[in-house]
Amino acid sequence: MFSRASAYDFSDTIAAPATASGIGAIAIVRLSGPMAINICASVFRGANLREVLSHTVHFGTIRDESGILDEVVVTVFKAPASFTKEDVVEISCHGSPYIVKRLLELLIEKGARMARPGEFTQRAFLNGRFDLSRAEAVADLIAADSAAAHHAALNQMRGGISREIIRLRSELLRFAALLELELDFSEEDVEFADRAQLVQLIKDLRQTIAGLKGSFAAGNVMKNGVPVVIAGKPNAGKSTLLNRLLQEEKAIVSPVAGTTRDYIEDTAVLEGYTFRFTDTAGLRETNDTVEALGVQRTHERISKASVIIYLFDLSEESPAEVAASVAALAPGLKPVLCIGNKSDLADSAILPSYSSLPGFIAISARDGANTESLKNALVAAAALPNLQSGDTVISNLRHFESLKETDSALESALGSLQAGRSGDLTAADIRRALYYLGTISGEVGTEELLGEIFGKFCIGK
Amino acid sequence: MFSRASAYDFSDTIAAPATASGIGAIAIVRLSGPMAINICASVFRGANLREVLSHTVHFGTIRDESGILDEVVVTVFKAPASFTKEDVVEISCHGSPYIVKRLLELLIEKGARMARPGEFTQRAFLNGRFDLSRAEAVADLIAADSAAAHHAALNQMRGGISREIIRLRSELLRFAALLELELDFSEEDVEFADRAQLVQLIKDLRQTIAGLKGSFAAGNVMKNGVPVVIAGKPNAGKSTLLNRLLQEEKAIVSPVAGTTRDYIEDTAVLEGYTFRFTDTAGLRETNDTVEALGVQRTHERISKASVIIYLFDLSEESPAEVAASVAALAPGLKPVLCIGNKSDLADSAILPSYSSLPGFIAISARDGANTESLKNALVAAAALPNLQSGDTVISNLRHFESLKETDSALESALGSLQAGRSGDLTAADIRRALYYLGTISGEVGTEELLGEIFGKFCIGK
Repeated sequence: MFSRASAYDFSDTIAAPATASGIGAIAIVRLSGPMAINICASVFRGANLREVLSHTVHFGTIRDESGILDEVVVTVFKAPASFTKEDVVEISCHGSPYIVKRLLELLIEKGARMARPGEFTQRAFLNGRFDLSRAEAVADLIAADSAAAHHAALNQMRGGISREIIRLRSELLRFAALLELELDFSEEDVEFADRAQLVQLIKDLRQTIAGLKGSFAAGNVMKNGVPVVIAGKPNAGKSTLLNRLLQEEKAIVSPVAGTTRDYIEDTAVLEGYTFRFTDTAGLRETNDTVEALGVQRTHERISKASVIIYLFDLSEESPAEVAASVAALAPGLKPVLCIGNKSDLADSAILPSYSSLPGFIAISARDGANTESLKNALVAAAALPNLQSGDTVISNLRHFESLKETDSALESALGSLQAGRSGDLTAADIRRALYYLGTISGEVGTEELLGEIFGKFCIGK
Repeated sequence: MFSRASAYDFSDTIAAPATASGIGAIAIVRLSGPMAINICASVFRGANLREVLSHTVHFGTIRDESGILDEVVVTVFKAPASFTKEDVVEISCHGSPYIVKRLLELLIEKGARMARPGEFTQRAFLNGRFDLSRAEAVADLIAADSAAAHHAALNQMRGGISREIIRLRSELLRFAALLELELDFSEEDVEFADRAQLVQLIKDLRQTIAGLKGSFAAGNVMKNGVPVVIAGKPNAGKSTLLNRLLQEEKAIVSPVAGTTRDYIEDTAVLEGYTFRFTDTAGLRETNDTVEALGVQRTHERISKASVIIYLFDLSEESPAEVAASVAALAPGLKPVLCIGNKSDLADSAILPSYSSLPGFIAISARDGANTESLKNALVAAAALPNLQSGDTVISNLRHFESLKETDSALESALGSLQAGRSGDLTAADIRRALYYLGTISGEVGTEELLGEIFGKFCIGK
């Protein structure tokens, strides 16, 4: 078992800006650690911070050797009633990058250490403030850019997944203890653990895990959005359509710097979900290498897409031509919307001939005619999970992988039990299942794992 | 006289994000106004905010109709012990743009109004928290990007200029009252105000104003930095030199979006001052219109620069050629540094022949040889004001203009007094002087003036 705090040294006090960088009315620099109050008090003139109550706010000035740096408001949180369960001081200064920089330099000069990315949350986790899955949710919550992503992250932060994992683990632990006891008395050939009950328990657990694993598709869509490929000939009006979809949505979200979404072109929020639209290269069969690469990329993107839009010019492509192009996309079982563009320029008498195409809608991307229907069709095709359901969903790939490993261990244990194999094998499998369940909550883990998880956080969190 | 608060309606409660936009660990949304506590309490679950003490901090959740939006920490400041002297609530939520947006929507739904730019500071001013020059300094402080700009803004915010203005105004007011009294008794031909004393007072005041006006050059350099033109032939290595100067300085500051500094190319902080380097077009005499425009722009920039660097390739330009090029720049009395570049490629025997050129230094921008000497020469040539002096400096153009108008009114009053003209004329001039002094502190002012000043603030300040 992994003891949370023992591998870490918390004797030092960390500092970092907690608010987004840039110019604002207010910026906050946060300190956490045993010297937080003393370090702040050494540069603060106002109330004696060493004597104030926890959760109180004090106006005063920060001074360096050349005089007053700023007028600030200091909030003191005393251990353990703070985010990190350590003494925490938040210094709310004027939102100037210059002041934030000087203030940090000053605090470091007085004995603080610049915090590593995610170190505040990591300390909160290691001090037992919350489990690992909830700590990870903090980063997801901050990055959430739609109602759905926010919902998934908040559910996780509030302990939705933790509760399921704790329940699974405690049931399994009880039987594991009995099995281990048997092994200690193995020469006496007794069975403390009822085999039939254990088989039933494992079957139940696997069913719960299957449910959680099954929720990952929904959770992934909530967290990462709905990938949509827009295919079609170069002159079909793809960029006009994208602009139209984005323009009508107030909440346009640009990809976040540093995330690996380099093929994403544009995103829009529809019905609380982020839709990620990818334009594609042309689709003609060709011997040209560049063009061929484009076709290959298109197929890769289609394989990852939830919905495919094939956009065509109503005056240029016949129903048969559209059907052939869609077939060339090889969409498999994925929903396809055949969208006939430039309805304002086309003869309306031809429209019925297209009606047998999958998801056919005639629109004008230029003047917005019928794009509302397209949006509704898109939302319907994406089969969005219901945000109001309150069910726990898995949205974190690491948790999904751990559940898969847990399930595989349980499957193996079940096989041993049903084949009547020796208790050691079953016990080893159950230990493995417990281990993987524990990595989700952080009950078991390694420094490397934690480093990897918290290293993805921003500085100051 | 302008009554601060009467023209404004403070019955509503305003809300805005107070921290810089973008992703961070924490973001703050701020409410101010009579309903601030009630509005927050209506969406907050935790302590009963209506009953808590001022300057206390409370953990809880924000809820909308679909459930929990976020876990937050709420700080309550009760009127008048707050920034605006109204009830203020700061909601510290997770630093997600999505959460900030939803939280604001929720507060507005519950009765708050989105704050206008600068409205928090404007309310603070109108409620008598500080005078106008100190309110203006808040914006300067936030935008300050060097020790010097920070020093000038902080001095102003702490009331450095206010104190001078209040002193000037109160002395003048005393005499003005006596003069006005004389006018009331004008038929009786009495003199309440001693003319000789008044003349001496006005002379003293004009001297003080001359000092403050004279400090504007220094204040402007502190606030806006030192403009430096780098001229020279295209192959002289200007961009290499710029990169070298910037690369060696850790604190590179990019121009702030939205400010009109479109001709600025790069800035670096040397000795606490921002140096603004402008590269120039070539300087050859030419009939080509585009080129001629370039030359005209160069001369414009030189007229605004504090220091001119003429950079040349030691292997390409002789001392006479350099002297001719510098003369073509028409630098007038401005300090010029003739910098011979590519010393690593040049024969060191030729260097003495350049020594009579103004400010000659041989450097290698490529390998950094002697660029430290160049920086020292630059700092010396800029004749930077002493940051430690503690003298009050004027760094705000509006204050400078008001001081000029005040001085002109005083000059006119002095003329009337010395020519023995009627008391009305003198009194009118002194009223005019009082008016302009009052616009600096905001004792007199108009809604338009305030709208213009606070409209330049960012939202949330």
